[in-house]
Amino acid sequence: MNFSSKLIEEAVNAFASLPGIGKKTALRLVLHLVNQPTEISEQFGEALVTMRRNIQFCKICHNLSDDPLCTICADMRRDRSLVCVVEGIRDVMAIEETSQYRGLYHVLGGVISPIEGIGPGDLNIDSLLGRAQSGDVREIIMAINPTIEGDTTIFYLSKKLKEFGIKISTIARGVAFGGELEYADELTLGRSIVARIPYRTEG
Amino acid sequence: MNFSSKLIEEAVNAFASLPGIGKKTALRLVLHLVNQPTEISEQFGEALVTMRRNIQFCKICHNLSDDPLCTICADMRRDRSLVCVVEGIRDVMAIEETSQYRGLYHVLGGVISPIEGIGPGDLNIDSLLGRAQSGDVREIIMAINPTIEGDTTIFYLSKKLKEFGIKISTIARGVAFGGELEYADELTLGRSIVARIPYRTEG
Repeated sequence: MNFSSKLIEEAVNAFASLPGIGKKTALRLVLHLVNQPTEISEQFGEALVTMRRNIQFCKICHNLSDDPLCTICADMRRDRSLVCVVEGIRDVMAIEETSQYRGLYHVLGGVISPIEGIGPGDLNIDSLLGRAQSGDVREIIMAINPTIEGDTTIFYLSKKLKEFGIKISTIARGVAFGGELEYADELTLGRSIVARIPYRTEG
Repeated sequence: MNFSSKLIEEAVNAFASLPGIGKKTALRLVLHLVNQPTEISEQFGEALVTMRRNIQFCKICHNLSDDPLCTICADMRRDRSLVCVVEGIRDVMAIEETSQYRGLYHVLGGVISPIEGIGPGDLNIDSLLGRAQSGDVREIIMAINPTIEGDTTIFYLSKKLKEFGIKISTIARGVAFGGELEYADELTLGRSIVARIPYRTEG
């Protein structure tokens, strides 16, 4: 691109360095900011820099947090005997969105993947074992994506956690509620038949 | 979305306030910055704020510029008797990209659009007339999109410019080079037949 302004070029390059944003999109965003009052850009820059300088990882669960403890771990009304193990903070957000879970979390920061060079030592596994050892935890729920790497990670963790005598579960998988059988993928449909559950009538 | 961190929420909202960026994309960008060193976010914020604080509009052509005169208007090797009138700075960039034009520009900042409440007074028209009056300009090229508003604007400008006796032209339109006739839209194909040009052989 042919910029008549170095300032614009640098701002475009800054945006274009973000994942999924190309030069044309970056230019559109920069021109949008040019057409807004200066304060908008100042607030924008301030929000990003303040966020990056002050963001921390929760000491207990490694979730992103404003304080040493995240709002979930600091919430004393939550069930501290239940820990849900997830890959990343987006999974925490997705589960919180459901309002169905009142326990705590543990963010691994990824899954074991020899191909990408990620071993158990690169993940937040030691601190999970520490939590298990403390005796406060009754059940650990594995909410990890069912990929080869995810299954490997669950297997590794369950072996490590065995000695603490904690109940380990994984989230239920099957045909989605409201999902049509004919459109479900074969793997999901097949497994949902194998893992069928008894039909219960209320009362 | 359910944010456990106020800092993340504010950074996500900042990104999501940009056009075409939703909350999910914004979260992805913020998490990308979290995973980068703090300096990356600082440089990012700095580039945007510096750009917005220092960007100016060229005193001659209203192009975005780092200095009172843009690099194009300040370039004494360019043909100052030729002025290309465009709607916005993206058009300047597109034409510069071709390396086919060595004259100056004039950025209107839009087109006359009664529906959107944009009249001649909202555009950089007075300064164009001023340039025409100065006597330096020999030809004005209208490189304005062929919409109803664009055609209205060209008509308005040509009437205003008449008294200065300057040659007025519009860019050639027709079937694109390399474009197949059968895929050209009817309007373009029809007009390209009406506005056919004599076939010239070299020498």
